[in-house]
Amino acid sequence: MTTLQPIAFVGAGPGDPDLLTVKALRAMQEADVVIHDRLVSAEILALVGPQTRLRNAGKEGFGPSVTQNDINAMIVDEALTGARVVRLKSGDPTVFGRLDEELDAVIDAGLDYTIMPGLTSASAAVAALGQSLTKRGRNTAVRLITGHDMQGYADHDWRALAREGEVAAIYMAKKAARFIQGRLLMHGAPPSTPVTIVENASRADQRIVSATLATLPAILAEADITGPALLMYGLAPRDAAATALPHVQEMI
Amino acid sequence: MTTLQPIAFVGAGPGDPDLLTVKALRAMQEADVVIHDRLVSAEILALVGPQTRLRNAGKEGFGPSVTQNDINAMIVDEALTGARVVRLKSGDPTVFGRLDEELDAVIDAGLDYTIMPGLTSASAAVAALGQSLTKRGRNTAVRLITGHDMQGYADHDWRALAREGEVAAIYMAKKAARFIQGRLLMHGAPPSTPVTIVENASRADQRIVSATLATLPAILAEADITGPALLMYGLAPRDAAATALPHVQEMI
Repeated sequence: MTTLQPIAFVGAGPGDPDLLTVKALRAMQEADVVIHDRLVSAEILALVGPQTRLRNAGKEGFGPSVTQNDINAMIVDEALTGARVVRLKSGDPTVFGRLDEELDAVIDAGLDYTIMPGLTSASAAVAALGQSLTKRGRNTAVRLITGHDMQGYADHDWRALAREGEVAAIYMAKKAARFIQGRLLMHGAPPSTPVTIVENASRADQRIVSATLATLPAILAEADITGPALLMYGLAPRDAAATALPHVQEMI
Repeated sequence: MTTLQPIAFVGAGPGDPDLLTVKALRAMQEADVVIHDRLVSAEILALVGPQTRLRNAGKEGFGPSVTQNDINAMIVDEALTGARVVRLKSGDPTVFGRLDEELDAVIDAGLDYTIMPGLTSASAAVAALGQSLTKRGRNTAVRLITGHDMQGYADHDWRALAREGEVAAIYMAKKAARFIQGRLLMHGAPPSTPVTIVENASRADQRIVSATLATLPAILAEADITGPALLMYGLAPRDAAATALPHVQEMI
């Protein structure tokens, strides 16, 4: 008889292997199989145990159009063999991680699960800026926002965000940048509002690009951002050195 | 000549030592002095290196009314001796961590710094509920909010938060719970909106208490919450077992 193990949904953090939690690292090292997303870095995947199989849920076996159903089936099928399964997701699985669809599948299959949170990219990005997501006297709330949803560009409380001192970390915002700019300007946000682009937060190839709401689309195009990028709305890098160059500043 | 070390502002995460990042753990173990807040757990402080001095910025040497200026001075003075200083903050130092005042003092003193992000309590709390902070088809944004600010109870976009499907993690909300309830109901939030209280998120003494907007103040009073607590607005525990008891449910 095979004893079934709880499936561990594990956050890999923003990319730097040292930003894994101790708990996540241990789970990866004790797993029989790690089912990971495309965005989990090679340095992190190199930390799995010697007995661990890696399965790439971003493409393996399914071609370019891997569906959520395929991923759900992969997780459930592995667990039903008795394997210790780690479902490894970039960042924090509870933040824009499409965790719920996988949990539903696992629960429908009668399997147990556990969730191990990870650092979301916004925490790493803001630390790289030398800033805080919240600050006494400036903002008593911060929003984590996505640039698009199932219908296309996501709508948000633009009027509230347009007020002075508001801060938001905008995920998956590259394509939506001009839409976001337009909505915020229309609702009265000053064109000079800082917006900092953080590409590959926490990774060796991290880049910090300073813009304002007025210059955002042009600077995004000029910077040629190819990696995952966060828009940090309302925040400029604290360190003057990071804004000394006219447009694009690289930091390690 | 003494070489001055960059001061490391380090997030200790929500309390479980296994939710430290690898980077934070290493910084603690290599530090000469760790200056920590009152909320950093004893289990985490036990992980410092054998050569490390612990200084409690919550009370040490200053009595009950330790000021931010005292803490700033402690950090700067230690660094000026050439010590490797870790300033250890509960959760993520960039989220309601009063990081900026300390950074300003460090920069004014001409010292270097680095910020090592930590898991904020909301990530641990929502994982304990088996939920996500964001969910396709439900919410494309999540807010991290404080229950009070320098002026008293903090005001927020209650009208926006009152809409169906909104999710917020409300920090330091115990005293403000009745105020928050009143504002949200006034702006049309259904009384049946779930609000889950997570006390001591991720710690051995974690408690999850289910309420609704209608029952929140009564259940908070009945549950006798004494540890740090987050209100997870718009979220109920996924697991039916966690809501089976009428009011208070303890989970380990």
